[in-house]
Amino acid sequence: MSTLQEKVCPHVRNMKQSGFGVLLGRARQIKEELKQGERKPYTEVIDVSSGDLHSAGLKPLSFVRQVLAACLYPELMSSNRLPVDVKQRARRLLGACSGESVGSYTAASGIPDIVHKLSEFITRRDGGVLSHPQNIYISPGSQWSITNLLKLLVNNSASPRTGVLIPVPCHATTIMSLMQVGAAIVPYYLNEEQGWKLQVEELHRALESAKGICNPVALYVINPGNPSGHVQSRESIQEVIQFVSEQRLFLLADEVYQEYIYGEKEFFSYKRVLGEMGPPLSDTVELASFYSASKGFLGECGLRGGYVELVNLDPAVMKHVYTLFSKDSCAPVLAQIALDLMVDPPQPGDPSHPLYNMVGSANLRPAFLTQVVNSLPGFSCHPVEGGAFVFPRLHLPPKAIQKAKKAGMQPDMFYCSRLLEEGGVLTKPGSEYGQKEGTYHIRFCILPTVDIMEELLKRLTSFHMQFMKDFS
Amino acid sequence: MSTLQEKVCPHVRNMKQSGFGVLLGRARQIKEELKQGERKPYTEVIDVSSGDLHSAGLKPLSFVRQVLAACLYPELMSSNRLPVDVKQRARRLLGACSGESVGSYTAASGIPDIVHKLSEFITRRDGGVLSHPQNIYISPGSQWSITNLLKLLVNNSASPRTGVLIPVPCHATTIMSLMQVGAAIVPYYLNEEQGWKLQVEELHRALESAKGICNPVALYVINPGNPSGHVQSRESIQEVIQFVSEQRLFLLADEVYQEYIYGEKEFFSYKRVLGEMGPPLSDTVELASFYSASKGFLGECGLRGGYVELVNLDPAVMKHVYTLFSKDSCAPVLAQIALDLMVDPPQPGDPSHPLYNMVGSANLRPAFLTQVVNSLPGFSCHPVEGGAFVFPRLHLPPKAIQKAKKAGMQPDMFYCSRLLEEGGVLTKPGSEYGQKEGTYHIRFCILPTVDIMEELLKRLTSFHMQFMKDFS
Repeated sequence: MSTLQEKVCPHVRNMKQSGFGVLLGRARQIKEELKQGERKPYTEVIDVSSGDLHSAGLKPLSFVRQVLAACLYPELMSSNRLPVDVKQRARRLLGACSGESVGSYTAASGIPDIVHKLSEFITRRDGGVLSHPQNIYISPGSQWSITNLLKLLVNNSASPRTGVLIPVPCHATTIMSLMQVGAAIVPYYLNEEQGWKLQVEELHRALESAKGICNPVALYVINPGNPSGHVQSRESIQEVIQFVSEQRLFLLADEVYQEYIYGEKEFFSYKRVLGEMGPPLSDTVELASFYSASKGFLGECGLRGGYVELVNLDPAVMKHVYTLFSKDSCAPVLAQIALDLMVDPPQPGDPSHPLYNMVGSANLRPAFLTQVVNSLPGFSCHPVEGGAFVFPRLHLPPKAIQKAKKAGMQPDMFYCSRLLEEGGVLTKPGSEYGQKEGTYHIRFCILPTVDIMEELLKRLTSFHMQFMKDFS
Repeated sequence: MSTLQEKVCPHVRNMKQSGFGVLLGRARQIKEELKQGERKPYTEVIDVSSGDLHSAGLKPLSFVRQVLAACLYPELMSSNRLPVDVKQRARRLLGACSGESVGSYTAASGIPDIVHKLSEFITRRDGGVLSHPQNIYISPGSQWSITNLLKLLVNNSASPRTGVLIPVPCHATTIMSLMQVGAAIVPYYLNEEQGWKLQVEELHRALESAKGICNPVALYVINPGNPSGHVQSRESIQEVIQFVSEQRLFLLADEVYQEYIYGEKEFFSYKRVLGEMGPPLSDTVELASFYSASKGFLGECGLRGGYVELVNLDPAVMKHVYTLFSKDSCAPVLAQIALDLMVDPPQPGDPSHPLYNMVGSANLRPAFLTQVVNSLPGFSCHPVEGGAFVFPRLHLPPKAIQKAKKAGMQPDMFYCSRLLEEGGVLTKPGSEYGQKEGTYHIRFCILPTVDIMEELLKRLTSFHMQFMKDFS
């Protein structure tokens, strides 16, 4: 054993190695085997394990890519291949870059002109509840901002440890961030029977359970939910705000899926609801709200750009925020530009508007999708209200559970592994997100094109019927 | 006082707020004042405070920008405005992206094809000492990799604290990273009288000084030096390797300025020297070597791309490295592509080669520059052997030191502040980097164009003569 291995920081050592890595590796192998001509019941792997839209076949928006290309290589602006509004936008953005180059560093919080645009967007989105540019920080992805806020909030040498309340189920990256900063995780369970509703009684129970174990300082919510696909009502958000105010918790609101709302529900940001609740709450509750260019309709994960808006933080604390964000210079400039394009799209009458507006029309309706899933024996699935994922519950036959346990696998991981092997579909098991003891789920992205989703449903149905038969 | 302010993690609280922020803010104000038509002895501010080349007026490389633009907007490849080698490269790189889009996530360590190119480059650079792709991780800037390695090495809840040896002077970002992870800083002094030589006796003294205070686990070196501008000889590197081996320290080698070498010295990477020293050292010394697209001749700071190569790490430790890097998904894809272009430039015969090869011909010779600085009374400056900066010592008159202290400022900060106000030149004071008690320095970037550097020397000379007269 090397000396270094003994020395590795225990927080890092405790970071959970995702079991999904094995599945991902196998998917890559299968792709390679298919390339080598190996015969399987399918000719390609459908990967719906992440919310990576471009990887799943979505075409990027021309307007976005044209502006980015023009900013990178301004000589393009002399050509007549690019629409006028693309050139105008690129000129404005380049003018805001130091040395008129996207190769320069920017201010730690982002290019002031773009940060200003973000604040205007937020104010518009939130029905006039004001957003201030000095409260916004752009970062390489929203998760990066979440980690920075956790660094601020979590005292990793305190005893008892600093606790953070997080939902079950919760996507894995936030769990990893919490482990890395040395936080104690305080789980609260979303109510699956009620469509993954966030219930305040459960928050109270969770807080109570932490007594004597850790010192909770923050509550993390994700709305629309990932993987749960629920959307909180205004009333539900009000209840949460009331709760954090009473308990003096910092509120971390992950709202990266805010554009994806289906059915009758409406998206309300925590910032808006807080603002509209009025004083004293609107002047006191400390809130961080996160958004991203990866998860919106842009789907530009590879650019790595997100932002956080901070509300009601003490100026002395904001100085620490500045220090944390300035340490890594700045977010990628092209990602900053993508955020500008995301919040300020072409308007009716602009040359790029017609093409831009066709976005998203080719998706399968989530209602149809859950209907198909629910028609399969052993599956039960709440309507997806928002977000990028469906998270159906899987009622596995006892024989399948025994078989999985014998193989040293979580039962839903066993199911996903078979689905990949036999159906050529890569999904993620519920065990990656946390779930009530004895329940099993799978998560998959619902945003790929109709063609892909129809093929996926076909393969899932056929695989599942066989699986249930094999283990009945 | 808000509750949050009391709760802020002490490591974050301890992160030093740079005094330079004030100067930077004032420079922005002055620019605004000039825009508003205010009359000053100069018409624009020369900013040589950072190594941000594009901000300082350097034009980006066409080849790099063309490939990036073509990857973003592949429709450009149908035009005949782009050279053939640009299109070929863009096609290869897009083919390596998931979904053929730069908007997709990549593997945590980077696009395998690009990581492979990096390892080939390293092997070539290091005279055949082999580099393995599985030891390379791409990150959003090299500093990000350094922080990740520190997270691994520094146990922030240990008692005594984990220590890291760093040079004095040392650039501020690494100091900030150390504070953030809660490391104890163990300073070793570079010998200014001997051209900022790194002396092993001094390393021993530093290590001895840490006894009973902290538990040193790593040594950080930066070669070529920033701000010191020295380049280590092969012998000096061998001595350092011998030292870390004897003391069982992890070696962090920051080599981001490796392309900038002046005069007779040659750049040797730590990896190469270690490899050529042979077993047992070459099989046992744990090394991380860092490089970046921001600091090389690309100067593409805004893209945020760097990498680390890890040597001799235990497979169990490499698993933790993977976990740390995978937590933030991946580095920006366009930055990954820039690294590919940096290490695999157009070759003679390629259409883009002639233009590409003109790079860097318009810089002022560092030897001339230090000669001018040395001709000023009260300045003494060692020849710059490498890197992007000159770091002359400033022998300030006692009256200037008194005046600064009365104003509550570090004497060299006082000097830089006056130089900005009266000469319109933004530099950084030595107090930002650490320096021997009672010595003062300023740092400025030497890479802007001849025109800018000549104007800078003119302004510096005129300001300095007046300053020395005022305080004589």
